[in-house]
Amino acid sequence: MEKMNVKPATGKLGVLCVGLGAVTSTFMTGVLMARKGLAKPVGSMTQYDKMRVGRGENKKYLHYGEIVPLATLDDIVFGAWDVYPANAYESAVNAEVLQEKDILPVKEELEKIVPMKAAFDHNYASRLDGDNVKDCKNRWDMVEQLREDIRNFKAENNCDRIVVLWAASTEIYVPVEEKVHGTLAALEQAMKEDDKEHIAPSMCYAYAALSEGCPFIMGAPNTTVDIPAMWELAEKTKMPIAGKDFKTGQTLVKSGFAPIIGTRCLGLSGWFSTNILGNRDGLVLDEPANFRTKEVSKLSTLESILVPEDQPDLYTDYYHKVRINYYPPRNDSKEGWDNIDIFGWMGYPMQIKINFLCRDSILAAPLCLDLVLLSDLAARAGRFGIQRFLSFFLKSPMHDYTENEIPVNHLFQQYAILKNAIREMGGYEADQEID
Amino acid sequence: MEKMNVKPATGKLGVLCVGLGAVTSTFMTGVLMARKGLAKPVGSMTQYDKMRVGRGENKKYLHYGEIVPLATLDDIVFGAWDVYPANAYESAVNAEVLQEKDILPVKEELEKIVPMKAAFDHNYASRLDGDNVKDCKNRWDMVEQLREDIRNFKAENNCDRIVVLWAASTEIYVPVEEKVHGTLAALEQAMKEDDKEHIAPSMCYAYAALSEGCPFIMGAPNTTVDIPAMWELAEKTKMPIAGKDFKTGQTLVKSGFAPIIGTRCLGLSGWFSTNILGNRDGLVLDEPANFRTKEVSKLSTLESILVPEDQPDLYTDYYHKVRINYYPPRNDSKEGWDNIDIFGWMGYPMQIKINFLCRDSILAAPLCLDLVLLSDLAARAGRFGIQRFLSFFLKSPMHDYTENEIPVNHLFQQYAILKNAIREMGGYEADQEID
Amino acid sequence: MEKMNVKPATGKLGVLCVGLGAVTSTFMTGVLMARKGLAKPVGSMTQYDKMRVGRGENKKYLHYGEIVPLATLDDIVFGAWDVYPANAYESAVNAEVLQEKDILPVKEELEKIVPMKAAFDHNYASRLDGDNVKDCKNRWDMVEQLREDIRNFKAENNCDRIVVLWAASTEIYVPVEEKVHGTLAALEQAMKEDDKEHIAPSMCYAYAALSEGCPFIMGAPNTTVDIPAMWELAEKTKMPIAGKDFKTGQTLVKSGFAPIIGTRCLGLSGWFSTNILGNRDGLVLDEPANFRTKEVSKLSTLESILVPEDQPDLYTDYYHKVRINYYPPRNDSKEGWDNIDIFGWMGYPMQIKINFLCRDSILAAPLCLDLVLLSDLAARAGRFGIQRFLSFFLKSPMHDYTENEIPVNHLFQQYAILKNAIREMGGYEADQEID
Amino acid sequence: MEKMNVKPATGKLGVLCVGLGAVTSTFMTGVLMARKGLAKPVGSMTQYDKMRVGRGENKKYLHYGEIVPLATLDDIVFGAWDVYPANAYESAVNAEVLQEKDILPVKEELEKIVPMKAAFDHNYASRLDGDNVKDCKNRWDMVEQLREDIRNFKAENNCDRIVVLWAASTEIYVPVEEKVHGTLAALEQAMKEDDKEHIAPSMCYAYAALSEGCPFIMGAPNTTVDIPAMWELAEKTKMPIAGKDFKTGQTLVKSGFAPIIGTRCLGLSGWFSTNILGNRDGLVLDEPANFRTKEVSKLSTLESILVPEDQPDLYTDYYHKVRINYYPPRNDSKEGWDNIDIFGWMGYPMQIKINFLCRDSILAAPLCLDLVLLSDLAARAGRFGIQRFLSFFLKSPMHDYTENEIPVNHLFQQYAILKNAIREMGGYEADQEID
Repeated sequence: MEKMNVKPATGKLGVLCVGLGAVTSTFMTGVLMARKGLAKPVGSMTQYDKMRVGRGENKKYLHYGEIVPLATLDDIVFGAWDVYPANAYESAVNAEVLQEKDILPVKEELEKIVPMKAAFDHNYASRLDGDNVKDCKNRWDMVEQLREDIRNFKAENNCDRIVVLWAASTEIYVPVEEKVHGTLAALEQAMKEDDKEHIAPSMCYAYAALSEGCPFIMGAPNTTVDIPAMWELAEKTKMPIAGKDFKTGQTLVKSGFAPIIGTRCLGLSGWFSTNILGNRDGLVLDEPANFRTKEVSKLSTLESILVPEDQPDLYTDYYHKVRINYYPPRNDSKEGWDNIDIFGWMGYPMQIKINFLCRDSILAAPLCLDLVLLSDLAARAGRFGIQRFLSFFLKSPMHDYTENEIPVNHLFQQYAILKNAIREMGGYEADQEID
Repeated sequence: MEKMNVKPATGKLGVLCVGLGAVTSTFMTGVLMARKGLAKPVGSMTQYDKMRVGRGENKKYLHYGEIVPLATLDDIVFGAWDVYPANAYESAVNAEVLQEKDILPVKEELEKIVPMKAAFDHNYASRLDGDNVKDCKNRWDMVEQLREDIRNFKAENNCDRIVVLWAASTEIYVPVEEKVHGTLAALEQAMKEDDKEHIAPSMCYAYAALSEGCPFIMGAPNTTVDIPAMWELAEKTKMPIAGKDFKTGQTLVKSGFAPIIGTRCLGLSGWFSTNILGNRDGLVLDEPANFRTKEVSKLSTLESILVPEDQPDLYTDYYHKVRINYYPPRNDSKEGWDNIDIFGWMGYPMQIKINFLCRDSILAAPLCLDLVLLSDLAARAGRFGIQRFLSFFLKSPMHDYTENEIPVNHLFQQYAILKNAIREMGGYEADQEID
Repeated sequence: MEKMNVKPATGKLGVLCVGLGAVTSTFMTGVLMARKGLAKPVGSMTQYDKMRVGRGENKKYLHYGEIVPLATLDDIVFGAWDVYPANAYESAVNAEVLQEKDILPVKEELEKIVPMKAAFDHNYASRLDGDNVKDCKNRWDMVEQLREDIRNFKAENNCDRIVVLWAASTEIYVPVEEKVHGTLAALEQAMKEDDKEHIAPSMCYAYAALSEGCPFIMGAPNTTVDIPAMWELAEKTKMPIAGKDFKTGQTLVKSGFAPIIGTRCLGLSGWFSTNILGNRDGLVLDEPANFRTKEVSKLSTLESILVPEDQPDLYTDYYHKVRINYYPPRNDSKEGWDNIDIFGWMGYPMQIKINFLCRDSILAAPLCLDLVLLSDLAARAGRFGIQRFLSFFLKSPMHDYTENEIPVNHLFQQYAILKNAIREMGGYEADQEID
Repeated sequence: MEKMNVKPATGKLGVLCVGLGAVTSTFMTGVLMARKGLAKPVGSMTQYDKMRVGRGENKKYLHYGEIVPLATLDDIVFGAWDVYPANAYESAVNAEVLQEKDILPVKEELEKIVPMKAAFDHNYASRLDGDNVKDCKNRWDMVEQLREDIRNFKAENNCDRIVVLWAASTEIYVPVEEKVHGTLAALEQAMKEDDKEHIAPSMCYAYAALSEGCPFIMGAPNTTVDIPAMWELAEKTKMPIAGKDFKTGQTLVKSGFAPIIGTRCLGLSGWFSTNILGNRDGLVLDEPANFRTKEVSKLSTLESILVPEDQPDLYTDYYHKVRINYYPPRNDSKEGWDNIDIFGWMGYPMQIKINFLCRDSILAAPLCLDLVLLSDLAARAGRFGIQRFLSFFLKSPMHDYTENEIPVNHLFQQYAILKNAIREMGGYEADQEID
């Protein structure tokens, strides 16, 4: 490796999770179990993927950790906030994602992860009713308390660095409001004025994290860091931000399957996606205001992969519909059913149905790990602001829409971008193009 | 374009199809209809795809025909051999793939495409019983008669160049026999000695085509040109060969979907693929000896995409099974059902089912067009022997196994190779790597 | 046959359809084609089913027409009302349900079926905008004009009897209002006072039909004849009424599949049903107010088949959800996807998925025929009011809820009731029980 | 209850299972757990179903045990034979059907169920290699040893009555051979002459059971008791026999779904059924000779439900294909995929796909319980020979083909026959007809 200017990953890495539910308890349990050699962190790119560096005769295939200095699983210390007081062990048991035998060996460690009181506003998630909640005078006070939490956690656990990860519920949809979200000054002003309508609690977490010099990752479809004010803050504090919405089940398939259609120049007349899921996420999304946030996130996927302007004969006016249904019998095992209407030679129609019986937390956990480790890496590499190279992990990748930047949703182009960033941080030459 | 050393596409291009059944009659009808502006050749890369040439500021997205000199649809003249005497119009009607309204406008032109007598051996496809068949003294005589057919067709139709395309049934499995298939001399000897066991009729077509200076394309899973003797002949006559097995329904999906799993580092424990199809192809494949040929072709897809050696935790000992079932109610509309058992974080299982209601001929027709136009291009570019860049279109891509060359089945890597070859023939710089 | 007191089916039977869209044009075309021996009326019980009459040694299996005097296909004369002026031929072509070759042989007859102006109120189906609409002073005037239409049609076509069949769109949901719908007098009063909120146009059709001595059938989920006022009218005029909502795709499957679960004493934890459909019906149902009418109709099916009170261990608190989605690419070919979560021995869960690629009009057309012929039969047999024996054909069978009568949704019990009624009208002994 | 001539169910009922694998260990565990109130015997008709007795005003709905004297769960004592020596606890754990928490509470009782040495012939199930096997001089000796086992078990466990249940693997197909299987004398002669080709080990179990005065139930598709010799023996010893092949997954659905199609007079053009399963049963069925036995059993279902002779327009020449595939990743959770091609009005095609993610043992266990309790009841009621009333539980119901008796496969007609038999044994009047 040559010319690498990334700081080494020394000391402990604190991982502070907003939300200590199914996803985070599965994430934590898996990391602790893997550390003991009792489970495999399957699905994690940082732990498994091998990618090419170099070209021609010099090319070789390496794990990410062989290219760049990543924190290891052993370096991680977990903390969390949640509106419910259950510790990580209780939460893992309640979630019914993992079998008892896969939790018990790390019970003691999990029990020690007790959630701090959450910064919460019932109006943003009316289906939740926990009371492990901070008492805040206003949004600015909320920020101050969260900052203090971060500082305390860092000191108590002797951490070198902290990453803050939102893995809590989807809040109600907050449209971007130029007057409030357009500049950092305006945002701070609104926080101080306690503008509850425009300042979601998640924004307080993000503000607190960035101010404390911690990368922030938005795993839900909330627009939290998708606003110019936060970009300004990230630039100011030189911190990376990543989001939004973990790319888990149906959208993972969509972002991988749409390229098959597009690459073969087959036409598309319609794509109908429906989902049934029964966990807390499903309950929250059963509320139309919260679903709206998700729908906006999920609908965008196809548009940038199958582009009418590029191929008007093939992709003009296809009908794309996404539905999410709360369905308690399924619990954490969400299920997607997609019907895809394509057409081929001479316009003749064909159909593809995809039925994905997946598990939300099982798919999200490795994304948590990768986003945390790669955000920490980015911070040490001096990369700040929107991290496009993390689009691979996200349903609705952040992009600077004020500059008309187009997000990349094509799974394999996202992968090319991811690899290029790793190459660059590792001192290797990146490929110049991704298609 | 700079430094292009490809001969221009002047004059008529004769396309001689072995088999005038559902696939070829759909292919021909579509080309003739598209020529009149009455149908769109959807699914054809040469007619639709736009690819990047150049890099950085110099990059642009062009159609293939803007990069390299391709024959146009107007240049094409069709001919065929078949064991049944029906002309292309009758065949298109019998196939029940296209609606009457999509055939009638080119009825006259189709009626003129009357099949020449086929070179046929009932032992290689016992379910077929047509009698529009050549009387041949031996395999060598079979070759001689086919060569004469090609010369006559070329002269009568005033063609500049000819491409021969096998779009007929799957023959019974012919394992590669070093003594017969190992060298051109041995093959010719066996033909003269009428070694019916080792010389499939398809080999006579390929031999005849190459000897007459025509590229040969194998659209079925027959091993026809997958033998060193044919490679030697292709080298001698400086002609391209391509094969084998059109990548139409289930394998298209598989070669695109397996990369989704692999790219996300998810594990695979099993993949079960079943097919129901009712056309002539299904009837032939209902015969175990013929199915064996197909099975070998279809099973290979996964192995080179999800590689146990590279990721032993994820891809060791997955169970892969492929079934094809003759099912007359479905006619040409074949249907695939795939069940994919994957596992994620901590080894937890999930399932994906894909149900593809596709149409064999609708998916195969644009492949015929692309393979013909690109093989003709390759010939003019002086590229001979195995055309790896056409792997994109084929279920079981040819590769020099005597040199332990590994075939590329990953759809998006195949696409990268295809684009690189077009770039090179167009005088642009190719990307150095495909992953 | 002995002791039969059913009037014979002499002379012409006029069939007046409300709505001349996909369903009715398919119905009419099929009847006319079948009359010429050019198509088979598949799916029609009156044309195909054979049922047992008699018992033990005396039992025999007869077609319905051999047991009771049914009108024949040759007796039928068609008429219609519609908000669009297209005649039945144009409508059949526009609907894209049937292929041209299956319509052309009866083109002339279809062209003669020109719709009368519809009694319409835009508020009840806001997505429709046709203008072949009557100008009515008030609801009572609407009734008067419809009665005149019926009388004219009967006279002009020399009909012996008329049946009126609603096969038009779903109106918005009209809850039963005791003050308006509770008695015939109240209903008539409201019509005269032009109470547009409580009197749907469909009620005017029903009132007109019954007043003119014609049976009335409600093929949509409208509550039109599901009100005591209409029951009173039916009793007064001694006319049968039947409804509501043709049992076509998903509910047909549900009413047949739920009994499999129930009969084997398997448990149910959830049933999720989603639908995609693209015809005019789908467009109307995309409007929440209209969907509500449909949802009420569709949800009731399970409750009376899998009954918590009878089997608390098995059927308490199952989660039942029904979704309908307008999806234009599918046109008339609607598609249902059901996910059924059952449990067995020791409570272990299992799943069943049913994907029904059906055609709305193809399934509805034979129901139209059967409901018309059997309603006409019932009228001649002196059976009036709610016809429970027609539940077999309907999604949400009419029942006298003021008497707490429980509807029968179990497909095979409905069939038993149907057969018993035929037996009785045919002078045979009915089976005493249906389970 | 009046005039009941069924002996009471006094004392212990010994249940001797041939095979102590997934099905029987699940059956035993469930019964023992239910006895302690720790699990529900869901899916069992004898434990859950309520059926009508009486008619009109006198009708009431009763559990079977309220109508006839059934043995209770508390009366049961389990024993088994198996080629593997694992006890019932070990077998339940190995099977991976039930979770640990559902087995542990009855561990002690299960551990006491240690299999006796099996009567086994490797040629009949070549994929099995256990060595807990009897050493037998010939088939007659095999019978003698099994009879001794039965007598010993009865004495040691102080049982009043014994039922023998075959829940072991499918043997290779043994066609009925008149000379050997036609009469009891011939059968005995062949046993003494050790005719291994015609005398399957299962026949020795059946012979031993019946000779010892125990009902015999064949849960696999073996033809064991489907031969006149066994009928003669059953008549001689006045014992009931029942078979064959537990109606668990796909065939359960088929026997319930085909009636939906038939009842609505829809046409059928094809039915394709495929299965993937990974347990010991699947392994054995991967052997073509063993699959043949199963295929014959599974194919018969449709023929007697959708009958070409009765409805030639609808059911002539439909294409029915059944496939079973060994697929280890699925373990005991077998999965069926059915594609059903139907046609409706004017012959227009529609498709139904059913995907059943089921669990073999979970569906089979309640059938074991019901077949055992009802066979014991039949014996006490003096009913001997073929028990048609148990067809409900079986894939390929026994019937006297020498008298051209037609089996009933229609699930709801089977249910009617079951209820009638219970009524009769309970002293109630049966319904005279079942359709």
